[in-house]
Amino acid sequence: MNFGNVSTAMITPFDNKGNVDFQKLSTLIDYLLKNGTDSLVVAGTTGESPTLSTEEKIALFEYTVKEVNGRVPVIAGTGSNNTKDSIKLTKKAEEAGVDAVMLVTPYYNKPSQEGMYQHFKAIAAETSLPVMLYNVPGRTVASLAPETTIRLAADIPNVVAIKEASGDLEAITKIIAETPEDFYVYSGDDALTLPILSVGGRGVVSVASHIAGTDMQQMIKNYTNGQTANAALIHQKLLPIMKELFKAPNPAPVKTALQLRGLDVGSVRLPLVPLTEDERLSLSSTISEL
Amino acid sequence: MNFGNVSTAMITPFDNKGNVDFQKLSTLIDYLLKNGTDSLVVAGTTGESPTLSTEEKIALFEYTVKEVNGRVPVIAGTGSNNTKDSIKLTKKAEEAGVDAVMLVTPYYNKPSQEGMYQHFKAIAAETSLPVMLYNVPGRTVASLAPETTIRLAADIPNVVAIKEASGDLEAITKIIAETPEDFYVYSGDDALTLPILSVGGRGVVSVASHIAGTDMQQMIKNYTNGQTANAALIHQKLLPIMKELFKAPNPAPVKTALQLRGLDVGSVRLPLVPLTEDERLSLSSTISEL
Amino acid sequence: MNFGNVSTAMITPFDNKGNVDFQKLSTLIDYLLKNGTDSLVVAGTTGESPTLSTEEKIALFEYTVKEVNGRVPVIAGTGSNNTKDSIKLTKKAEEAGVDAVMLVTPYYNKPSQEGMYQHFKAIAAETSLPVMLYNVPGRTVASLAPETTIRLAADIPNVVAIKEASGDLEAITKIIAETPEDFYVYSGDDALTLPILSVGGRGVVSVASHIAGTDMQQMIKNYTNGQTANAALIHQKLLPIMKELFKAPNPAPVKTALQLRGLDVGSVRLPLVPLTEDERLSLSSTISEL
Amino acid sequence: MNFGNVSTAMITPFDNKGNVDFQKLSTLIDYLLKNGTDSLVVAGTTGESPTLSTEEKIALFEYTVKEVNGRVPVIAGTGSNNTKDSIKLTKKAEEAGVDAVMLVTPYYNKPSQEGMYQHFKAIAAETSLPVMLYNVPGRTVASLAPETTIRLAADIPNVVAIKEASGDLEAITKIIAETPEDFYVYSGDDALTLPILSVGGRGVVSVASHIAGTDMQQMIKNYTNGQTANAALIHQKLLPIMKELFKAPNPAPVKTALQLRGLDVGSVRLPLVPLTEDERLSLSSTISEL
Repeated sequence: MNFGNVSTAMITPFDNKGNVDFQKLSTLIDYLLKNGTDSLVVAGTTGESPTLSTEEKIALFEYTVKEVNGRVPVIAGTGSNNTKDSIKLTKKAEEAGVDAVMLVTPYYNKPSQEGMYQHFKAIAAETSLPVMLYNVPGRTVASLAPETTIRLAADIPNVVAIKEASGDLEAITKIIAETPEDFYVYSGDDALTLPILSVGGRGVVSVASHIAGTDMQQMIKNYTNGQTANAALIHQKLLPIMKELFKAPNPAPVKTALQLRGLDVGSVRLPLVPLTEDERLSLSSTISEL
Repeated sequence: MNFGNVSTAMITPFDNKGNVDFQKLSTLIDYLLKNGTDSLVVAGTTGESPTLSTEEKIALFEYTVKEVNGRVPVIAGTGSNNTKDSIKLTKKAEEAGVDAVMLVTPYYNKPSQEGMYQHFKAIAAETSLPVMLYNVPGRTVASLAPETTIRLAADIPNVVAIKEASGDLEAITKIIAETPEDFYVYSGDDALTLPILSVGGRGVVSVASHIAGTDMQQMIKNYTNGQTANAALIHQKLLPIMKELFKAPNPAPVKTALQLRGLDVGSVRLPLVPLTEDERLSLSSTISEL
Repeated sequence: MNFGNVSTAMITPFDNKGNVDFQKLSTLIDYLLKNGTDSLVVAGTTGESPTLSTEEKIALFEYTVKEVNGRVPVIAGTGSNNTKDSIKLTKKAEEAGVDAVMLVTPYYNKPSQEGMYQHFKAIAAETSLPVMLYNVPGRTVASLAPETTIRLAADIPNVVAIKEASGDLEAITKIIAETPEDFYVYSGDDALTLPILSVGGRGVVSVASHIAGTDMQQMIKNYTNGQTANAALIHQKLLPIMKELFKAPNPAPVKTALQLRGLDVGSVRLPLVPLTEDERLSLSSTISEL
Repeated sequence: MNFGNVSTAMITPFDNKGNVDFQKLSTLIDYLLKNGTDSLVVAGTTGESPTLSTEEKIALFEYTVKEVNGRVPVIAGTGSNNTKDSIKLTKKAEEAGVDAVMLVTPYYNKPSQEGMYQHFKAIAAETSLPVMLYNVPGRTVASLAPETTIRLAADIPNVVAIKEASGDLEAITKIIAETPEDFYVYSGDDALTLPILSVGGRGVVSVASHIAGTDMQQMIKNYTNGQTANAALIHQKLLPIMKELFKAPNPAPVKTALQLRGLDVGSVRLPLVPLTEDERLSLSSTISEL
């Protein structure tokens, strides 16, 4: 499964009552696919997975598959810190026709490495879909050790990639060096895209691509064509917006940024709250400087 | 609401098929109430809340209220990182007759202080029950700042206590100093019980009380009676078991410890896994030295 | 050796040319001894040891011993991250007639536990003076593990105490529980004085005692007399000033605080710089509220 | 000043009495210059600066300048946490004929950003030599913020480079983007060499170059020639040895590694201690796999 250079961790548009807005979703999908996106993650963290019901997630999977219509791979966020529920949702996603699933390391209950291995093994065994693991200790506290990622990649045929957001470039190097050639490491941090490529990574699962998808695509292409100095310049140019999109809890900033770009995608659901006026001003000035 | 000195964050017993075992629950409740427990937290983290279904949680609330029959306050764990779901479960818990609810700070989606304030405010407004907040950044990453706790305690009448597991004694001192007299700070770490009492805390929401409840109760009584040296000696004696119960992901160690004490409470649910043989040996030797 | 409840980590007064001002030192010593100080640490971190020459340190030891004239124990800061130099300075301090020496864990070069054990063993072997170890990983990065402190206390007769500023109350409990009765643990953080007493600690090596020495002494006396609630109230009252004294790099705040109290002790030496106007205002308002 | 791709932070050879061994130093210098080293840092952290006397440092500067004889730039480590001493040693280094000086951020006394700015400004003003700053919060705790580095690079003509070992690639990107073209950022971590090049860095001040200098040089050349995949493969190959050299306090591992390669450079000085037998075995097996 080729997820491409830039996979967008897509936001979930809401209407002004806070319900999923499928009309806005169509507009967003087309906009993303025209602006550097090679594949879409649906109902991941940036899609506010914690505050979507199971029903809403399934509807999102179905609608996105229909709308994308094969143009790019659709990756469904179906992992949680409950193995049984993750299996159920993964099966539903498969029924909905998605191309792959993303499984985040269990958050909050801090399982051991063996617990995480058994968790992913149990879920992957219940689907034929390719699985992208997602390691983000900045949210889950428990971090998937490179040894466990390497073990999962070796033991489980449909575990084919990992979105690595640990920021640990030594661990990421070890994963790349000790997994099969066709196991891909994607950066889970926009700002570490080039550094992860430099040690052998494949691409990025991005939030910034909602706003700078074409630039991100160009940066990676420059890099892979050996034009490393140009790639570094694009990285330096994009860093302010990459940081700005995480100055308030994601996805409040990126939803506001899309709005500032004329794409109304609604607000966020509690416990997330809209940007303050200061945050909004800071974001819009950063976007205007882009 | 007086939660007493020692509130036990109760495990959830499972049968050998992994289902909630209410028979074992009755035995456990009686054992705890005879061994130093002043109140019970049901379906908290130690109760494996992430892998209990909503139905199982409601059944646990109802059964525990019936079994406890007013002997001690029953506190239901109803918070999550989804405000809407937390409100629903809080209402169900109230219907089940619990005496209070515990609301953990939202995990994984890392809301801002304002987001957490609005989250707790929205839930507390939907119940007349007393609310104990639960700050545990070691699991949730986002930490409830003392200023936000103080604001909640001042603004929301039924926010009456906090289980503080940040380990930040300066923040805890500030909360104690700047909240009303009848707002209580409980330690969320067994090993910080005395240090938190020393700066003005009220008691502990404990895991170790499954094994050393009477000792914990005696330690706190010594302390409040001014016998601080005796209290310190009990603390020093209990520290090894307090640490041992967290050498593997909680509650696997404490469930195994109960088993070693003759109280079969079943295993844990994925993504948590049973102790390894080494972990088991280390636990049993620590218990025998107690 | 009885260092008492409150040992003051004394600042080093400078004149307006930045030289050690012995006249001001006499005034400071009398002021401290009248305001709750049971022993004095000379040329420790708060005494700006990094920017004192060896000659200045020896002169400070000699002058302080003469001025104190046996009223309280004088502890000389003679440790560094150079074993050979530490031995030389320890011998000079002994010649100057100090009552004990304080040895900080080596900073910057991050030795192993075995390296630190051999370092302290080599220095302690060259003096008959009692040695107080000083663990402050917040400055040195390398932290003295409780096992190494316990080993030093068991193996080396004149290692008699430790100023513990790791903030790790579990490690501190283990040290207290597994060292001889007459090995004392002093808090190296003013704000953790009561919490460390609660698990069996002896007292505090304080910076705040320059400003609130009498209160600190009263707080500890209340505690040891079993009046734990009163002790907690004093702790809550002092916390703002304890925190204020570390809002800018120590000892710039405490030297300014002494000045605001009418005791001119001069400024600090580069790379430390005087407080900004905002820092000064914040400090003086906190002192006035004390 | 062109420090090249690979600057080696050179160890200081000792004889079996622990004195600086200038004979071994000559052999080492020739070996390094034949194996990928473009410039030499003398009496830096890896040269055990904390346990060298001032006299030994000056002798090392003089001897190295004579031996190198202009083949590559010689950079003297003259910074410490004492501004006055740093100025004195910087002047001595200039007299000894070195080509540049390296100034580490003050360790242990944790100055403010303004304190560090004034510290570096004061030292740089006393020499005409180019200055390389060295930010290594993993040893000094206080970290030089990118804003302060940018301010120093703008205000002080002879501040021309920084060895950045904060591991913060966002901060490093900001420094690169906002400093003059001829201000160079060198990686202070061997394992982050490529990631720092990928965001616009210049090269590495290396410990691993004692063992894999030619490989490091080839890796960087591949990178700058656009052969990024080959560069990544060399990086993946070298990572084990890069990590091994820091499994025990540096420079004990690298001195042992040189010995295993037939270059006797003596042991380390307390508080550093030789490798344990296990550490030695682990090191030699990693070297043999290289």
